[in-house]
Amino acid sequence: MEHNLPHTIALLSRTPATLNALLRDLPEEWTHRNEGETTWSAFDVVGHLIHGERTDWMPRVRRILESGESRAFDPFDRWAQERESQGKSLPQLLDEFAQLRSENLNALHALNLQPQDFRKRGRHPALGVVTLSELLSTWAAHDLTHLHQISRVMAYQYREAVGPWKAFLGVMQCAGHSASPVAKGSAAKP
Amino acid sequence: MEHNLPHTIALLSRTPATLNALLRDLPEEWTHRNEGETTWSAFDVVGHLIHGERTDWMPRVRRILESGESRAFDPFDRWAQERESQGKSLPQLLDEFAQLRSENLNALHALNLQPQDFRKRGRHPALGVVTLSELLSTWAAHDLTHLHQISRVMAYQYREAVGPWKAFLGVMQCAGHSASPVAKGSAAKP
Repeated sequence: MEHNLPHTIALLSRTPATLNALLRDLPEEWTHRNEGETTWSAFDVVGHLIHGERTDWMPRVRRILESGESRAFDPFDRWAQERESQGKSLPQLLDEFAQLRSENLNALHALNLQPQDFRKRGRHPALGVVTLSELLSTWAAHDLTHLHQISRVMAYQYREAVGPWKAFLGVMQCAGHSASPVAKGSAAKP
Repeated sequence: MEHNLPHTIALLSRTPATLNALLRDLPEEWTHRNEGETTWSAFDVVGHLIHGERTDWMPRVRRILESGESRAFDPFDRWAQERESQGKSLPQLLDEFAQLRSENLNALHALNLQPQDFRKRGRHPALGVVTLSELLSTWAAHDLTHLHQISRVMAYQYREAVGPWKAFLGVMQCAGHSASPVAKGSAAKP
């Protein structure tokens, strides 16, 4: 389907409650373990989502509306959560994410975007020219890529425990990693 | 980590609320579309989870405790939801799943399983000998494989809308499919 603002908002507005239902008060064996080396735990992912709410999505929407292609988006720091989540608990991060997402959706609503706005163009530092509708679609799909990642990282913790069933569980064969050691230090991220 | 019953139950008990937060009242463009051909939508997945609660997990726990390896598990019907979800709404299915999961976790608790029980063996019709701890671990991992699938199927609906960002979104590159056209008619499923 093409980008549809009400559909995008319907999805964006549900992610904080989804992560809250899945992760709050879950044992740390599920939420704080990763897939090895520099991969991310569910805790890391929530910190990454927070950083996106602060520095990525709405600032880029405004950059397109204010500067078009003339001024590229600021690069996104994929490792900001290593600093910013320090000393915080997962419930704190879940609350922070919910608060920021709510504020950003209010700000998006206040922009009162019109059909002609969605074709407006901006400049991504790595991808080049992108449109406002592509940015908004990616905001929603980015939530889904990290829900996909969290479910995979958590399943990974039981990769031995499931015994021979591992062969039947698609999540154990997933190679669709947004955040992998290979990507560390690269700009290969929204 | 090894199988741990409280960790398994912590995860199993959160899945209904997670799916509820993600899917209830979401536009059908997200919930009723699939990845083409005979793949599953989010709606189909919830129907599949319901069928598992009715016929798969607890019946297999009981089969192990009652019959050990002497009597194989009944095969699981991967396409039951095509019949059983007919005429139902997604909110109805979400309610049904939550109710069945709650009943099954109560039944699991009532079994008062002891450490020596987890080593008990049963017979899977395709995988052969499996243990009770592997079955319980798989119950939890199976929730995660379908959360992973739902997030991928929903992201697929925006595969064009995200434009060049598609290359950066791991969920768009996932090949870890539990339910694919290839698997139709096969027993390749928990």
